[in-house]
Amino acid sequence: MPNRVAVIGATGFGGAVCAFICRHHPSLELTAVTARSEAGRRHDELYPAYRVPLEMETFDPDAVAERADAALVAYPHKAAAGAVSALRGRGLKVVDLSADFRLDRDSYERWYQPHEAPELLDEAVYGLPEAHRQEIRDADLVASPGCNSTAALLALLPLRGRIDDAVVDIKAGVSGAGREATEETHFVSAIDNVNPYKTEGHRHLAELEQELPGVRFAFVPHLLPIDQGILASCYVTANGALTREEARELFERAYASEPFVELIDAPPRTRDVRFTNRATVYVTVVGDRVLTFCAIDNLWKGAAGQAVQDLNLMLGLPETEGLG
Amino acid sequence: MPNRVAVIGATGFGGAVCAFICRHHPSLELTAVTARSEAGRRHDELYPAYRVPLEMETFDPDAVAERADAALVAYPHKAAAGAVSALRGRGLKVVDLSADFRLDRDSYERWYQPHEAPELLDEAVYGLPEAHRQEIRDADLVASPGCNSTAALLALLPLRGRIDDAVVDIKAGVSGAGREATEETHFVSAIDNVNPYKTEGHRHLAELEQELPGVRFAFVPHLLPIDQGILASCYVTANGALTREEARELFERAYASEPFVELIDAPPRTRDVRFTNRATVYVTVVGDRVLTFCAIDNLWKGAAGQAVQDLNLMLGLPETEGLG
Amino acid sequence: MPNRVAVIGATGFGGAVCAFICRHHPSLELTAVTARSEAGRRHDELYPAYRVPLEMETFDPDAVAERADAALVAYPHKAAAGAVSALRGRGLKVVDLSADFRLDRDSYERWYQPHEAPELLDEAVYGLPEAHRQEIRDADLVASPGCNSTAALLALLPLRGRIDDAVVDIKAGVSGAGREATEETHFVSAIDNVNPYKTEGHRHLAELEQELPGVRFAFVPHLLPIDQGILASCYVTANGALTREEARELFERAYASEPFVELIDAPPRTRDVRFTNRATVYVTVVGDRVLTFCAIDNLWKGAAGQAVQDLNLMLGLPETEGLG
Amino acid sequence: MPNRVAVIGATGFGGAVCAFICRHHPSLELTAVTARSEAGRRHDELYPAYRVPLEMETFDPDAVAERADAALVAYPHKAAAGAVSALRGRGLKVVDLSADFRLDRDSYERWYQPHEAPELLDEAVYGLPEAHRQEIRDADLVASPGCNSTAALLALLPLRGRIDDAVVDIKAGVSGAGREATEETHFVSAIDNVNPYKTEGHRHLAELEQELPGVRFAFVPHLLPIDQGILASCYVTANGALTREEARELFERAYASEPFVELIDAPPRTRDVRFTNRATVYVTVVGDRVLTFCAIDNLWKGAAGQAVQDLNLMLGLPETEGLG
Repeated sequence: MPNRVAVIGATGFGGAVCAFICRHHPSLELTAVTARSEAGRRHDELYPAYRVPLEMETFDPDAVAERADAALVAYPHKAAAGAVSALRGRGLKVVDLSADFRLDRDSYERWYQPHEAPELLDEAVYGLPEAHRQEIRDADLVASPGCNSTAALLALLPLRGRIDDAVVDIKAGVSGAGREATEETHFVSAIDNVNPYKTEGHRHLAELEQELPGVRFAFVPHLLPIDQGILASCYVTANGALTREEARELFERAYASEPFVELIDAPPRTRDVRFTNRATVYVTVVGDRVLTFCAIDNLWKGAAGQAVQDLNLMLGLPETEGLG
Repeated sequence: MPNRVAVIGATGFGGAVCAFICRHHPSLELTAVTARSEAGRRHDELYPAYRVPLEMETFDPDAVAERADAALVAYPHKAAAGAVSALRGRGLKVVDLSADFRLDRDSYERWYQPHEAPELLDEAVYGLPEAHRQEIRDADLVASPGCNSTAALLALLPLRGRIDDAVVDIKAGVSGAGREATEETHFVSAIDNVNPYKTEGHRHLAELEQELPGVRFAFVPHLLPIDQGILASCYVTANGALTREEARELFERAYASEPFVELIDAPPRTRDVRFTNRATVYVTVVGDRVLTFCAIDNLWKGAAGQAVQDLNLMLGLPETEGLG
Repeated sequence: MPNRVAVIGATGFGGAVCAFICRHHPSLELTAVTARSEAGRRHDELYPAYRVPLEMETFDPDAVAERADAALVAYPHKAAAGAVSALRGRGLKVVDLSADFRLDRDSYERWYQPHEAPELLDEAVYGLPEAHRQEIRDADLVASPGCNSTAALLALLPLRGRIDDAVVDIKAGVSGAGREATEETHFVSAIDNVNPYKTEGHRHLAELEQELPGVRFAFVPHLLPIDQGILASCYVTANGALTREEARELFERAYASEPFVELIDAPPRTRDVRFTNRATVYVTVVGDRVLTFCAIDNLWKGAAGQAVQDLNLMLGLPETEGLG
Repeated sequence: MPNRVAVIGATGFGGAVCAFICRHHPSLELTAVTARSEAGRRHDELYPAYRVPLEMETFDPDAVAERADAALVAYPHKAAAGAVSALRGRGLKVVDLSADFRLDRDSYERWYQPHEAPELLDEAVYGLPEAHRQEIRDADLVASPGCNSTAALLALLPLRGRIDDAVVDIKAGVSGAGREATEETHFVSAIDNVNPYKTEGHRHLAELEQELPGVRFAFVPHLLPIDQGILASCYVTANGALTREEARELFERAYASEPFVELIDAPPRTRDVRFTNRATVYVTVVGDRVLTFCAIDNLWKGAAGQAVQDLNLMLGLPETEGLG
């Protein structure tokens, strides 16, 4: 019997890909898609390429709970906490794509705002399978990591414990800025431009500091005229000498059996992972510095793809199922 | 003594280029720039590349009239009529970039809405110098043509009187859709896309019908992922046989002494006219059909550049001055 | 038992998508991929996103015939004829993506060059399933249509027999120009540009004239800064009055049971069909003219996707299998 | 009397902008443009937007010396040295845009190849006016800096003497990769992609090490789908505590009277400096790290614009003349 799944907030770019993947997933049955402002429209009218022939509903947790055993919540942070709480209260397994359950309460409230459902934080697991696979398997609530954090962490995790200093320079496509039409996302602003932002501090840094404590970080995202894709370029000073071969071996060991992370022999390019859940990683040593790069599709491995990967683990399905 | 000029509505894409050209024009002095919602900000904060170091003001016709002898009005249609009327009433020469004074009253009210200043229609001249140069020289109020109409008319005018049927297929950049952030102008909607719109009737057709009466037209614009640029591809059935040489000769005669229209030997490309007031035109005959193409920059020859060209004529300045 | 398939010429954009689709097709086994200049490299080194883990071989028809029952040939025209002939001589079913078997000999030799394998022309079927489904099912050699022709024909076929005059204005992405690095395909030439080409006659017109005889055509392709996608905008003068409802009914009837052609209620956009084998079609009537538009992905429905659709028919498989 | 100038190698992207600027410069007369493979064609046929109506010649130093007092040499490195030597031998002042005269012999031969004209190295001046203005004024041979180096140096120079460690992450447009059509510059490779390259060491690093000795650098360029533009993002560990205000003051002092460098209050964007010789710089301090960013147009301030700025200084002209 297929697992019945709902996507809460299916009109944003990330939520729409959630709906797409679930709809075409062999072991999931997508039973409901909800929308805040566009309820009543069919999803495939808004996103024809995703071919999800369902009418979007206003979110009603009781109605969802009747038809679904699990949910992917793709609301903005703050709005997400309430929806997650309502669904967990009705027994559904939940993967939340917002920031609301990624951090401990202190860190969350420092970077975001007062938490709307702090009582759930204890059961939430940070949903990066490459770091927390077993906990995800056992969890009922998983917080899917931020897109920038995913790229940076996959570039850095094999060096965990050896990093003194890491400069993380993020290049990110416009879909990461969301579906809202703003001055920044206007075609004429974005095309033929590179736009560094949040230079004084981006919230995704909180996730890096949680997963890699003790590192002196710099972290700056740049908006580029690409559609989907993130490249994290990381410049690491290690706390001990490391040859290219030693660095490479650490990465080989870390990723040998990872289904979606591929250690490659040349710097990764975002185009090569578009529309896939793959992450490509490259590591080298230049002088006494370790350089490591990771490319992902921000809507797939950086959001919806990873959320379904988490859900597969939570439901006991093959981890790669439905993910190409 | 330089001519003192104001730009009314300098925050839209067209108005901003007006300010840019006037500011760097050797015989004009830009004395005021106005804005509806962003008064108080400096223009070069909004458009750094244009280097116009003036603070934008709320539009006050008396204040403008004290400091300017002429004005370029770059408001949306309907809003423009009132501003033009106020400035004409204070004696300024005006070039209006909206549709408000391009058409006769009947045609305007059929395509747009009730006219806000019909009493000015008699003195308004359609500002396509290639068709109405002498009238523009003598005018106090000139209506700068639409961007699509400009490209189409420059492709078709040399055939005036010989056209039975013309299919006009327009390819236009996103800046033509304006500065407002909408679903259509969102980078993620526009990139890697071609978007035909107003297939059932675009208002610029009214201008073609006015300037080229008696032609059976089809007219469809398409939005493309380019920044600035319009290509008009015109497929003409003439009312009598025409060889390639005859067609070419008509165009040579029409454009021999035009300063901004260049008849070229290969199909025109929008990139070659970017950021210039040039129009490149190509004509050929295939079978019994005349094919003619025109490329312009929609913000220059299709809007601000042409408006300044009109203003040069109205002020007795060299027609090309300040236009590169 | 799966059908064993080879892709001949898997390094071009079209051939690479053939390899991708076949590799992930549930009823096909991709047993060989060949390359002319890059034999010895793995396919997924060249096209990581397609995940085809096969080494490319130099084309040897005997070696291919040992391992494959069918082949997709994705060579340039002229080179294709020889390869097709060698494979047909060894009993393989073949779908050829070049122009070599699309036209009768006279037409081919007028538009292209002397034919290299004219003896095969009799058995070749024009591979547009929407026009020739049954013949494709019965064929051993199918010529997959050109990308521009596919878009234009799907826009026009429901009007067959009623068209006097059709202007076909094609907007096409750069991948259609092929993988060769040229001045035209250089990023700096293509970006922010619209480039009409072959204005005096494009070879794909020959296919339109064959499938829709008696029509007075104009046909001009335009190169745009998009990656994958074609939009055909067709302006039709019918040989009798046709209301919007009548036109729409003709299209509904034609496409009611087509698995990949979708009649929609608004002008189609290429982005909505990217990476799919779908064609979206819109028809309207403005004045006395029928306007019809079709959007496809040039590498899918315009090349590799359609070739696999043909192969599915030839092999008795479900027509949509492996095509998303 | 205007200064007669020749552009040697006017077909590449940088050389073409040299020709454009010189042609429209009020105090320069462009008397010759040369080309290696396209001699005989007119420059404006190749680059219509630049409107340089000169026929390109094969390079003949005697013929050039008869008509020009100065030359801009825009050849690739190695080829440049010979041309420069021939022109210097005939008494012309020369600005060379290649790498051939930027470095001392040791450094050059380590990063490039044996030097073709080492006897000229002594008289060559590194042409970054913000660092070497007076020497440029007095020089007969100036080596215009690399585009990446220019952006990085303008971001870092005000911190000279205080930098322990600097990570320089470069984002660069495709025009920087040159006019040659390659797999990398193909539209379909470049669009929707980010491509880090030369991760193990880019030659422009040699210029940084020369101008800022003693710094521990990391330096990685990334190719982006933009046309013209470079952003340098620099992450600096200073050799002593520095507050945001102190850092800002250093930059204000350094750039207060620089005509082309503008210290701004927000991170710079490449689009705001397109087609200008401006550099916009932003500096901030986050934690104990100085972050500094610089945006330029790689073909203007990163190549041709800077070369003309150098030439203006060498000829005693106003430094900004002809540069907008």
